[in-house]
Amino acid sequence: MLKLYYTPGTCALASHIALEDAGAAFEAVRISFKTNEQNSPEYLAINPKGRVPSLVTDRGILTETPAMLAFIAQSFPAAQLAPLDDPFAFAEVQAFNSYLCSTVHIAHAHRMRGYRWASEETSFVDMQRMVPKSMGACYRMIEQNMLRGPWVMGERYTICDPYLFTLVQWMEGDSVNPADFPRIRDHFERMAERASVRKAIAEETSR
Amino acid sequence: MLKLYYTPGTCALASHIALEDAGAAFEAVRISFKTNEQNSPEYLAINPKGRVPSLVTDRGILTETPAMLAFIAQSFPAAQLAPLDDPFAFAEVQAFNSYLCSTVHIAHAHRMRGYRWASEETSFVDMQRMVPKSMGACYRMIEQNMLRGPWVMGERYTICDPYLFTLVQWMEGDSVNPADFPRIRDHFERMAERASVRKAIAEETSR
Repeated sequence: MLKLYYTPGTCALASHIALEDAGAAFEAVRISFKTNEQNSPEYLAINPKGRVPSLVTDRGILTETPAMLAFIAQSFPAAQLAPLDDPFAFAEVQAFNSYLCSTVHIAHAHRMRGYRWASEETSFVDMQRMVPKSMGACYRMIEQNMLRGPWVMGERYTICDPYLFTLVQWMEGDSVNPADFPRIRDHFERMAERASVRKAIAEETSR
Repeated sequence: MLKLYYTPGTCALASHIALEDAGAAFEAVRISFKTNEQNSPEYLAINPKGRVPSLVTDRGILTETPAMLAFIAQSFPAAQLAPLDDPFAFAEVQAFNSYLCSTVHIAHAHRMRGYRWASEETSFVDMQRMVPKSMGACYRMIEQNMLRGPWVMGERYTICDPYLFTLVQWMEGDSVNPADFPRIRDHFERMAERASVRKAIAEETSR
């Protein structure tokens, strides 16, 4: 059985939702950042990067959200979570998710994890000050050029949708006003009503 | 025919090499960062993010290196650039490339593009000071846990290889000592001998 290692409030939620969407049999295992469990010897044996999410499969362990999402879509084709038989359409899905991981999530991470890229307190403050602007630019790009509606890729729900939803949860914490992005807000509200999303969030917040 | 928009010295080289590996018919179009061509109205119509690479196809335009690399592998299956029929092995390829785009390339970008995440000169200096450490940690992770050898995924060359090669070109500029990473250095030298790599580099440096 698949085993998803996650921490509440992280991007692991995207894979958690996708596993629910796929109807997968899986166990969700919580890793506590408060006790630095992600850097424990036990967890580093699973993911030497010390990050969540990780997905334990019978073939081995996978990490990195875009890779895990595509794996879930390919492993459960009946759920139709990506256009698997169309390399161009699949690449569009992947390009969206790659933008989320390498640009949007990174811009967000400068609010609380500036120590990854700098060491001075003044730099952290400077980075935090930039987040509303950089995240606002990301959301403007998504709102104007990327989100087709009603789902990210148009009429069909894909693995882009839980990933966007997961990052948009952080919008207000990043001091970006959801009212400025009505199409993203609509998408977020549509996602929040899905059974898969409710189930994943309930599980992550249950303890 | 495919059209690859690239700038010399950028991660676009990974896709350029992969297109050569695939035996694809394509045109390579140079975008000049010196004249800020990536933000010209003409180029923003191709890629509103104002970044390279972009790949123009007969179906539309693709961006984001990991997505483009997977697209090239899927579009030219005879070249066997990824384990296309094995979702787990394909996800391993994607996880590696996702790590390169969202962790390694990002750590590197703090050397010269700190303005994306901060605004003070002191922060840029602080970020630059961190690059040898953060990039060293990335290369240690790759050397010890990810690069199987002789190619990234083991016996078979994949779309991970040109991407790793492309970032490793920047190693000395990032003040990381290649001698500390003999397996990565061996991989780099093995890559540099490939006809596809020589051809892509020759084209990018020809003018």
